[in-house]
Order: sequence, then structure tokens, then C-alpha cells
Amino acid sequence: MVEGFEAVRPVAERTPRDEPPRSSADADRGGLTVDQLSETQLIARFAPHLRAHEPGGGSRYEILGPGDDCAVVAAPDGRFVISTDTQVQGQDFQLTWPNGVVSTGFDTGHKCATQNLADVAAMGAVPSSLVVSLTLPGRTSVRWVEDFARGLRAGAIACGAVHCGIVGGDLGRGGEISATATVTGDLEGRAPIRRNGARPGDLVALAGTVGRSAAGLDLLQDPSTKGTVEPHLVELMDNQLRPVSPTPLGAQLAEAGATAMIDVSDGLVRDLTRVAEASDVVVDLDPAALDDLARPLAAAGERLGRDPLYWVLHGGEDHGLLSTVPAGTRLPHGARPLGSVRAVPPGWGATVVVTTGTARESVADRVRVGTTPVRELPAELRGRGWDHFEPEDGV
Amino acid sequence: MVEGFEAVRPVAERTPRDEPPRSSADADRGGLTVDQLSETQLIARFAPHLRAHEPGGGSRYEILGPGDDCAVVAAPDGRFVISTDTQVQGQDFQLTWPNGVVSTGFDTGHKCATQNLADVAAMGAVPSSLVVSLTLPGRTSVRWVEDFARGLRAGAIACGAVHCGIVGGDLGRGGEISATATVTGDLEGRAPIRRNGARPGDLVALAGTVGRSAAGLDLLQDPSTKGTVEPHLVELMDNQLRPVSPTPLGAQLAEAGATAMIDVSDGLVRDLTRVAEASDVVVDLDPAALDDLARPLAAAGERLGRDPLYWVLHGGEDHGLLSTVPAGTRLPHGARPLGSVRAVPPGWGATVVVTTGTARESVADRVRVGTTPVRELPAELRGRGWDHFEPEDGV
Repeated sequence: MVEGFEAVRPVAERTPRDEPPRSSADADRGGLTVDQLSETQLIARFAPHLRAHEPGGGSRYEILGPGDDCAVVAAPDGRFVISTDTQVQGQDFQLTWPNGVVSTGFDTGHKCATQNLADVAAMGAVPSSLVVSLTLPGRTSVRWVEDFARGLRAGAIACGAVHCGIVGGDLGRGGEISATATVTGDLEGRAPIRRNGARPGDLVALAGTVGRSAAGLDLLQDPSTKGTVEPHLVELMDNQLRPVSPTPLGAQLAEAGATAMIDVSDGLVRDLTRVAEASDVVVDLDPAALDDLARPLAAAGERLGRDPLYWVLHGGEDHGLLSTVPAGTRLPHGARPLGSVRAVPPGWGATVVVTTGTARESVADRVRVGTTPVRELPAELRGRGWDHFEPEDGV
Repeated sequence: MVEGFEAVRPVAERTPRDEPPRSSADADRGGLTVDQLSETQLIARFAPHLRAHEPGGGSRYEILGPGDDCAVVAAPDGRFVISTDTQVQGQDFQLTWPNGVVSTGFDTGHKCATQNLADVAAMGAVPSSLVVSLTLPGRTSVRWVEDFARGLRAGAIACGAVHCGIVGGDLGRGGEISATATVTGDLEGRAPIRRNGARPGDLVALAGTVGRSAAGLDLLQDPSTKGTVEPHLVELMDNQLRPVSPTPLGAQLAEAGATAMIDVSDGLVRDLTRVAEASDVVVDLDPAALDDLARPLAAAGERLGRDPLYWVLHGGEDHGLLSTVPAGTRLPHGARPLGSVRAVPPGWGATVVVTTGTARESVADRVRVGTTPVRELPAELRGRGWDHFEPEDGV
């Protein structure tokens, strides 16, 4: 570790690589690239931005920050939660989108923070520490790396993870940009909120939002939106580039008695199906609540010729928190009712029920999606959320 | 998360990539590749191998294992240590070496475990949990991924991290194989052993070894060693492919009163210089002890025309533990004396002193390496350890 960041580095020979085409993260002519600095120098440019908001240097949980082989973090109740997640250039984020928008290092850092912190919140825990490992091609601009660090810090603040220290990390080389963050959290003495605790009679609540990031993604991927300045479309694209998860609501929902929780990363139906299956229940989504979520996406839907309900049902990456709570629970500000939980009827499996169509109240219009076959759901609303490896033409 | 592994995955479009040449991790014709499986199916193939040695399912520290947004790990003394590290194909490991040796998934997983666990041990802590994020090109063989999981588990066992649970992870796609592990550890009520605690009069101790991995690396990179079956050379190559860090010695050295500790990842002189600088002391390495470490490398040195002392001084990746202990400390089995600590003489800076040459006892032959200029050290022994970004022609 050099100046606070780990440098556990093998002696492997640097072999020449086939370099991919230039990207927006590459330094402009004359700009400083990471391979012009030593690891020590690069870390000296990177690390200060991670701690910029902490005049005292350190979070409530940080006992020993960067500078040794490990950081030391407090776990006041004798436990901690932990999760890890990676973003890879070209897979999980585009440096330049088909409509010409450029993802900055700031965007990538911000999103890296959000998607990791949401996992801690979904357990009902408070984020306590974050470590990050960043892999960089040698020609990456140093500015991009500094922006990443600022974005990571800003993302944590935007998500309300104000006590979370960024306590260490690792910088290394590779052929493509890749960022892995690991987050830990403090349960503050509460039981962790799992996926398997939803009970018949519970209400389903959503903290944060769904569908906005997916709408933003489709806008970014449509060349016809090039140069758009319409504020509501720009906002949706920003939501894809820099999503914000309301992490304090995770602990608040846990305190309110949440029986199950998950963050929506792969899509509302897909992630809620995981809760239904783990809990062995049926979840009915409330059509009016879905409409409320779809309505602000109407203009984007018209622009792209898409039913906005599709984004609500299947879009991930807003990193809202889906929870189930006992009926009658007073929801914290920022959470809204989204449906209800019932026992699995005879002949059914655990599933999520989406009611749609004109005869919304009719049982006949109910369709099941998830592990049971899709029936009657209009073709334009069928989807399955995100799976990294699922064959395109299968399933 | 699907079946215990996190699937926080964006909805980014899968863009065609320029595929690099086939590698030894690619499936043979007809072999199953990761893009033929869904993420759920791939995780079902991956996860069981991580827990194969734990009939009870879980380690001493595991409160909640894979299957939710986070795992929950015990931190009995109200703190934990944490560190993260990444290995990238072609940078940190070669899938096929110049001498024809093939690194398996097992090797890569094993090394990933070792280099992370060593960081926990170097704080004087006992490894408590590990999470891993694996990025894979679509054509990677499923067998390689299963082997990685087995290697990760086997590496933890080989390092003596018997109470460490592999509690979660993430599988995703990318253009090159990349593995990031994050480890946590339990200080068992002790103070963390930092780099800045070495005091004049202390002894320097090494647990484990140095130089063997570097010798193995040079053998792997020399085409003339193709097909070698000489046991001592094969052993050295194995040491590079699957290094073993004696992690229980970290806690034992802490209990014995260690004042500073670091794991040797970037080279003995480079890592010990970090301790010297953090502690503001001079460290004298004992020439006889260095010779003892170099002697078993003599045959490899002859084979490659290299002074084996070079590997001892500058080779990393054995992940031995360097510590300083008060004079008179009884070292635990597995640790050996390597030198001593003194105050910085007037006109010097904190540094590591390597004595070499025929007149070994002569102060005049002493040379300083590290942040102060190399003087008098024979050219064949000059080195600087590993820096991922350091310009090739600089410094």
C-alpha cells in the first residue's frame, strides 16, 4: 500500500496489448495519462478526492483509514453486513453513448457508489465503509481517475451515506476500465432484513423510484435524442448516469418493521419475484401505483414509441428499495405503497402478479410473470429484467 | 442476487466487442462457455465449490451467508479490518506463459485468495470473510470458473485461513478476466499492527519466504524452461502460480508483540522501505539471512544466469509477512530473523540498508536503497520491486 492505497502487485511482465479504439476516458493530446505516473503519484492524485467532504478526515466508523495493509472499521454491535459489485466499461457503462452523451469518470464513480450502497441499505443497515479497486488502461486520462474519485464520494453523499468512510482501495492496470467496490454496513443492533420474510397481509412499499434509469438508458441509446436539452429527458438520462438510492430509508424501513427488503437493480418484477420466491408468497402489484410511476415517463415513452409501464416493470438501476411491511405500518417519508402480499393459491407458485389492461379489476386480466409462464400480458410489456449471462435468444 | 450471489446489474446494452485471441481459459470446441448459461445457472455451478470444505455450511464468523443483498459477518470485538485487491488477466497473471505452462482457474483463484488474506494477516488479524467479484469474457469455459472457485477455497485453506467464510460475490461480463476479492479480519481484541511502529533496537522477522515466486516468474517467462520437470524448478513455478501466505503467523506475531508488519507483495526492499519510512527508522538486513534465502534459489539462478539475491531483494508475491519485534522476542515457528532496526543517523533518511560484496562486515560496503539513491550496490542487484504504473524508463 502506498499513501493509503494498496499496492499488492505481482511482478508479472508487462506484455504489449492490443489496444481498443480510443475512448472518452483517454487523455486528449498532451493530457496526462495514468501510465505517465508511478502508482504512488497516481494514488496521490486520486485519494484526496475521496475524503474531500470530511474535514476531520474519517467517518463515524473509521478507526484506521488508508495507509496500511488494511483499514480498520467499527462494528459497534459485533456484526457487519458486506457486499461487492463490479462495473465494467462497455458492459455496465458506456464511455460514449449512441446519442453522443459522454459518461465522465464522475458519473462512473457516482454510480459505483450508489449500486453498492443500495445493497447495504436493503439489509436495513447503515453504510459504514467502502473500499474500491480500479483497473485502468495505461492511456486513461488522470483527470478521469480524479473525476471517478470525486464521483464516488459525491455518490455516497447523494445517497445519504454520510457516515460511510472510503477507507481504502487498489489501483491497477488492465485492458479496460473496471471498478469494483465493496461496502460494509452497521445493523445498529437490528436483525438483518432478508428476502424471505414477506408474509400474507403485508404491504409492499417502494422507497425511491423505478423505471427512470431504464427510460434514461433507452434515451441514451437512441441516436435521435442527440443534442436534446428537454429538461425531463435530460433528467432521465442523468438518472441512468448517476442514480441515487435513498439509503437512509433502508434503516428507517427496518425500524418501521420491514419483513423483507431488496434493492431494485435488475428490474421491479425480477427483483420482487426473488422476494416472492424466497418468502413463498404471491405479490400483487397495485395498477394505480404502477401508473403513478409510469406517468412521469409518458413523454419519454412518446418520444421513443414505448409504453412507459415497461420501464417501470422491468427497468433496473434506479436502486430503489422494495420492502414488505405489516399492514397498517406508517411508511417513512420517501416510501410509497406499491402492492400487497397474499398466500400462494392452490395450483400456483410463488410469483408476482401484474394486473393490466382496461378491465384492471378483473381477475381474468391478471397475469403471472416470474418463474411461471407469462400469460395474457400484452407483448409490449413482457420482459425479464437483467441477467448478465442469459442467452439472448433463450429462456 | 441470485442463489446467493449478487446480481446488481445494469441494463446496458451488450455491445459487440473486439475479441482478443483465444486463450487457455476459453472453452475447447464443444465445451460449455459462460455465455451459454444464465447468471443463475452459472452461479449454481460456481457457488458450491466455495463452500465445499464446510459441511456445516459457514465459518466461525459467518452469521448470514450468500443469498441476500449482503452477507452478515461477526466482528466479536466491535471492529474489523478490510482490504481489497484485483488480479487482471495479462497483467497480474498469464493464462499461458512463455514457457508453455498454463495457469488454470484453480491457480488464479488460489492466488486471489492468498494475496488478499495476506493483507489481513499483516495487520495481526485473523481472516473472517471473503467476497469475490469475477469478470468474465462470454467465451470463458465454465470449467475455468468452477476451477477458480475451488482454487479460491483451496487457497484460503492452504494459507491457514480456516475460519474464513466465502460469504458472497458477483459474476459479470467483460472483455478480459478480472478477479477482485475483498477480505475482512478479526483483531481478536488486539491493536492493529501498522507499518509505523518499528523502533530502534527491534529485530526484523520474516514469516514465510521471499524470492521464490519471483524466481518462478522468471522461469515461467523463459521459453528455454519449456517442458522442465526438475522438481526444484517446478516448485518455484508453483510458488508463483499458487503462493501461500502463512496467515496464522500474523496473529501469532501480533501476540508476540510485533511493533510493525507488512506483507511482501511488491518486493522485500520495497515493502520494508515502506515500514522504514512510516516508522522513520533505518533497517539493516542481515547478509547471512539473505544468503540463507538465496541459497535454495541457486540452481534456478544458474539456469537463468541471474544472481538469486536479486529475487530475494526485489521479488514480491510470496506474500510472506515482514514484522519488527522487540529484541529478545521469541519468534513463533515459521518466522526467522532477517535484520534489525536502528535510529536514522544524522544526514540519512529512513531507509533499508543492504550489505553485500566480499567485505560484508564493512560499513563502507553498506548501501542504501529505497527513497535515497542506490550507491555501490552492484548493478545486477539493483531493483525497485513492483509498481503498476511506474514509467518503464523512469526512476
